[in-house]
This record gives sequence, C-alpha cells and structure tokens, in this order.
Amino acid sequence: CTLNCHVFQESLLSSSSGYSNYRGILNWCVVMLVLSNARLFLENIIKYGILVDPIQVVSLFLKDPYSWPAACLIIGREPLSVICYCRTGTISKTTGLILHILNLTSMLILSSATALTVTSMTPVGGVISLGVYTVLFLKLYSYQDTNRWCREIRQAKAKKMTRSFSYMYYFVFAPTLCYQLNFPRSPRIRKRFLMRRLLEMLFLMQLLVGLIQQWMVPTIQNSMKPFQEMDFSRMVERLLKLAVPNHLIWLIFFYWFFHSSLNFVAEMLQFGDREFYRDWWNSETVTYFWANWNIPVHKWCLRHFYKPMLRNGVNKFLAQTAVFLASAFFHEYLVSVPLKMFRLWAFMGMMAQVPLAWFVGRFLNGNYGNAAMWISLIIGQPIAVLMYVHDYYIIHHVNTT
Amino acid sequence: CTLNCHVFQESLLSSSSGYSNYRGILNWCVVMLVLSNARLFLENIIKYGILVDPIQVVSLFLKDPYSWPAACLIIGREPLSVICYCRTGTISKTTGLILHILNLTSMLILSSATALTVTSMTPVGGVISLGVYTVLFLKLYSYQDTNRWCREIRQAKAKKMTRSFSYMYYFVFAPTLCYQLNFPRSPRIRKRFLMRRLLEMLFLMQLLVGLIQQWMVPTIQNSMKPFQEMDFSRMVERLLKLAVPNHLIWLIFFYWFFHSSLNFVAEMLQFGDREFYRDWWNSETVTYFWANWNIPVHKWCLRHFYKPMLRNGVNKFLAQTAVFLASAFFHEYLVSVPLKMFRLWAFMGMMAQVPLAWFVGRFLNGNYGNAAMWISLIIGQPIAVLMYVHDYYIIHHVNTT
Repeated sequence: CTLNCHVFQESLLSSSSGYSNYRGILNWCVVMLVLSNARLFLENIIKYGILVDPIQVVSLFLKDPYSWPAACLIIGREPLSVICYCRTGTISKTTGLILHILNLTSMLILSSATALTVTSMTPVGGVISLGVYTVLFLKLYSYQDTNRWCREIRQAKAKKMTRSFSYMYYFVFAPTLCYQLNFPRSPRIRKRFLMRRLLEMLFLMQLLVGLIQQWMVPTIQNSMKPFQEMDFSRMVERLLKLAVPNHLIWLIFFYWFFHSSLNFVAEMLQFGDREFYRDWWNSETVTYFWANWNIPVHKWCLRHFYKPMLRNGVNKFLAQTAVFLASAFFHEYLVSVPLKMFRLWAFMGMMAQVPLAWFVGRFLNGNYGNAAMWISLIIGQPIAVLMYVHDYYIIHHVNTT
Repeated sequence: CTLNCHVFQESLLSSSSGYSNYRGILNWCVVMLVLSNARLFLENIIKYGILVDPIQVVSLFLKDPYSWPAACLIIGREPLSVICYCRTGTISKTTGLILHILNLTSMLILSSATALTVTSMTPVGGVISLGVYTVLFLKLYSYQDTNRWCREIRQAKAKKMTRSFSYMYYFVFAPTLCYQLNFPRSPRIRKRFLMRRLLEMLFLMQLLVGLIQQWMVPTIQNSMKPFQEMDFSRMVERLLKLAVPNHLIWLIFFYWFFHSSLNFVAEMLQFGDREFYRDWWNSETVTYFWANWNIPVHKWCLRHFYKPMLRNGVNKFLAQTAVFLASAFFHEYLVSVPLKMFRLWAFMGMMAQVPLAWFVGRFLNGNYGNAAMWISLIIGQPIAVLMYVHDYYIIHHVNTT
C-alpha cells in the first residue's frame, strides 16, 4: 500500500457493489427513538410540570365514595348468573335453553341499563363492570355450547360427564373464554415467576396511569381547539402528536394485560395454557394481526362463532365479516354505554378493518404489509380516541357553559 | 380443538418459551420514526411557515456580488502552488524541499490571513476556500512524499518515473488525497450512472439548504435564550431538539459528498477506486468509525502520518493520539478562521474522541458499542454547533445592540 494505495472497486452504497449489511441501522433507529422521546418527555415536564396524581385516579372509579355502583353491579349479579348453570342437569333441555338465553341477554341488557341510569357511575367504572359482564357472557356461552357438544357425544357413547360447582367457578376465574372438561394444569406454582408478574402488574399500572395523566390528557386538551375550528393541518399535527403516547400506552397495556396479568392469574390457578397472544408484531396482513394479538377472544370467536357458521354452510368471507361485525358490536358496547353517548366510531373503526384487510392482503406483502399493520394500529386508534373525546367534550363542557 | 382447545404451553414473551423472532420491531421503529418526524415537519411548517429561500443562499457566499474574495482566492492561488511541483526534477533536492515546505505553510497561512482580513468574505465562502486549500495541502504533501519514496527506490533500481503536468492536474482534481504513479482507471464513463449521481447531487443540495433554513436556523434561534439564561433543563431540551435535524443533515451531507459528489467526479475522470467510505454504520468501536467514514482522509493519515511515525519508533497509542491531534487542528482551523473566532470547541470535540474510544473499546461491545457510536455522533455534533453559534451570536448580535 505504500506506493500504490488505490485499487479498482465500487462504493458500498452503489447497487453494483452487492453490499447489504445494514445491521447498525436498527441500533440507529432505537437510539433516535429513545432520544426523540426523551426530548418529548422533557418538553412535556417543562411545559406542564408534574401532573401525575394518584388521588385523581380514585375519583375516576368513584364519584361518591359511599356508593360503589360498579363494584356492586359486579359483586351482586355475578353469582346469580353462575349458579343458574349448576343444576342444568335436573331440568329439561328446552327449559334449560330458554333460561340460558334469558340469562345471557339479561346480563348484557341489565348491566348496560344500570350503567346508563345510575348517575354516580363513572365512565371508567362503567367500562370495567361492562367488561366483566362481557367476559362472563362469552364464558357462559362457551360453557353451554361445550356442554351441548358433550351431551351429543354422550348420547352416542353413554359416558357421564358432570362437573362440580367449584370447577365451574374455576372456569369463571381462569384466563380463558373457552370451556373444556379438563383444562391442562401446570405442576406447581412458581413463586419467583408469580412475584415477577405481580411486580410488573403493579409497576406497569402506575406507569400507565402516569403516562395518561402526564402525556395523553394535556395533548388531548390541546387538540380540542383545532378540532372545534376544523383547522385541518393542525388537526393532523395534533393527531400525530397524540399517536405516539397513545401507541406506547397501548403497547404497555398489551404487555400489562396479556403477559403480566393473565400469566399471574394463570400461575395462581395453575392454569397450563399460557398462549394469550402470538407473534402479532411480525404480522404481514391485517387478518393475521387480529387472529394473533388477543388469543382468548380469537379462540372463542373461532370455536363458537366462525366454525359453527362454516359448518352451517356460510362462506368464508361472510363468516369473517360476521366475526368482525360481532367484535365491532362489543367494542361499541364497551365504549358507548359507559360514556352514555352513541356515536358508532368504535363500530366503524372495527368494520373498517374488513376493507383494510382486503387491501393489505391484495397489494402489500412482506415488510410493506407489516408496516401497513403498524401504521393502521398507530394512526387508527388515536383517530377513534379523538372522535369520542371531542364529542364527549362538546356534550359535557360546551353545552353546560 | 372443538372439545379440548387448550394445551400446556408458555407465553411467547416468557423467557422459558425460547422465542426470539422480533423482525417486525425494525418495521415498528421505521414507522414510528417516519410518523414522529412527519409531525415535527408539520409543526415546523405551522409555526414558521415556509422559510426556504434560494436567494438567501447566494448571500451566504457573497456579501458584495461585485467582489468574490473566496472564489478569487481559490482561482488565483491554486495554479501557482501546483506549477511549483512540475519542474522539481530540474532543481536540487534541498532547494526543492525548502520550496516545498515554504509553499505548503504559505498555503495554509496566506489563505487563512486572507479569510481573516478581507471583510467581504462570508463564513460559508471562507469554509469552502479554506477547505479547498486544506485538500490541496494534503494532496501536495502526498505528492512530495510519494515522489521521495520513488526516488529512493529509483536510486536502487535506476528506473525513470516522471509524470507530465497533465497527470499532476489529474491528481489535483481526482477524488483522493494520496498520490500514486498509476491510478486504477475505469474502462468507460457510464452515462446513466453519471446522470443519476448528478441528479442526486442537485436534489440533495436543495434538500440540505431547505432543511437548514426551515429546521436548523429556527431551532438554533430558539435555543439562544435558554443558553444565555443558563436554564439547564431547557438547554438539554433544545439540544435534543437540535440533534434530530442536525443528524439528518449530517447523514444527507455524508451521502451527498461521499457517495454522489465523489462518485460523480470519479466517473467524470474515470477514476477507478470508489472506496470513499466503508461500513461505518455497523462500527462497534469509535476507532472503527473514524477509520471508515472518511476513507480519503483516513488513507492519507495512515500513509503519510501514522505509518511513518510507527516506522520512526513511535508507539501505537501515541501515534493514534497524534493523528487525532492533527485532525483536531484541521477541524478547528476550518471552523475558527472563517468565523474569525477562536474557541477550541471543535478541537476539544475531536480530542474528546480519544478517551471516548478508550471507554467504548474497554467497556462496550457488539450492539452496545454500536449504539454508543450513534449516541456520540447524534449528541456530540449539536453540542459543538450550539457552542459556536452561541458565541457567534453573543459577538455579533448582543455586543452591537
């Protein structure tokens, strides 16, 4: 090299060089994200000071500390619904079916009626109690369905399959929506695993509340003015500003609920099947995302809704659309009733997944499909959030002043 | 699955599951970066309007359009320096060496003296003319060194190696700092390659100017107040806010200069060695970064500075430090002289690389070393930029008002 230090060669970034190792770019992305968000965090603290306030959280659940309507609704109604099912063996099949349908519909209607009429019920309390009833609805539907299948097999095989009241209650608390006669059980409770999940639950709960108070609430409050004035470029800017904390909160919520909480409950109950989510972060189609981020609900939909429809001769696309329709109904139900406001934004958001899934599946694949999934997730949610908050704000703040 | 839909299994995110496919996370990073920067871009446009102004760019180069001191300096002095070397064969060795040293030092000193005294010279014009002279200095040093080595070999082998005036001029314009007797040549000028590089050059040049006017300048102007008041948390916030556009501009500059421009010149001159950079983006140590991002300078330092020092018995660490010292001198020279302001920030920034390289090499490796390299690049530069701009602002705006 001393005399001749040049040889004939191409630059690495020229396509003719055939070079393709950009491993460092991933680290670059991570560093840039951490630094940009550190700045946003610092800007937020400078602008608003510390807004995290644990006392304020309590007031979300209870307006009047002496009447706890949401808690009463959960504690009072639940055992009634469950007890009904323990003696189904002693009454006739038709009577049982009628009682079953009555019980299920009454669960959804009565709980929503309570949420709508009791004025001391806060939106957060409402979401939680309605969520509990929706879960119970799905569980009891699955219980009845599975028992019906068992009876059909029993008639052929003449084998007895009854279960105790305690097993019924085990199913109610188990982290699954699908009933089966013998759940797989883990051999023992791993104390360290349990403690780690518990600490995660407590820490992430605090983090979620802190992020919402410190980051979401001021951003949403700042968004109200552009949305009332219909200033389009500012609306987009606010939407993108809201998208980052909203998405981080959703990711933390996902981990908190589907990993920490469900694993904690499962470990406590020695419930063996821990598949609460699959690798949705790699999904290249919208359908794959919906089929893999929430396995308990997906399993229920597949077992008690989609497959029975296929067995009854419904075509695949129609059955898929029907699943999205049911999901859209429950999303709307869980948002509209506690807010006492019927706007169909959540319903439309879920139904928009059908054409989106078709578009992504038809035109995009590989990393482009994956990026489309992320964009729809990151952008779609804050649009719905802003819609509801905007309408809630108009009703509760503009009309009263 | 109809009757028994649960099997014993762990969640994917549990360490015991052994799962490790997070390919989708890279796409997530890219989407989040694009969306956050789209928001910053929109916020910037809303706040400042369109600031891009091509006419303003011209005024950076010329205060007075009828006197072009920087251009005169480049055009007037350069042929003189080069012509000196064409007849070195006809004069004695000692006279040649004295003339060589006089010529080299005069190049650095005269050009800087002109930049310091001529008041119509703008900082941008100054940087460009001093940059041209530094490049010429390094090229002529290399020419003299290589010819000396050749003479030493010639004395042993008695082989004649003279080169024409035109070959000398080819070397002056070729995209390299290291002279050699036979440069590798590419067989033909690829017209499409040349056009693509030319279009990249023109487009990226516009983009660079636009980003500086629209994003850097307002951010720097907003940073002056916190820096004067020494408000620490706001200083950090401003620094991080500046880091993003500064880093993007540096990346675009890197591609514009080292890929588009140097390849364009090389293609024009059919210069075969296109290795202007190596894969510094994957570098896991600071040393690897400095040895690979700017290959022409690195090659020169290695060939004419580091290796001769090693041959003279200097130890490795000392030789490395000396290279950084020389590099720090030129960085400082190229910044301080055009700004007419001696502050040593650039010098200290370069010298800080020595302990940083030691620290990263000693304590971090793999992806951590790579992330450390990125952080020092993203954060280090805007610190130096803010230091100079702050001092420049104090001198030119605070003292005069």
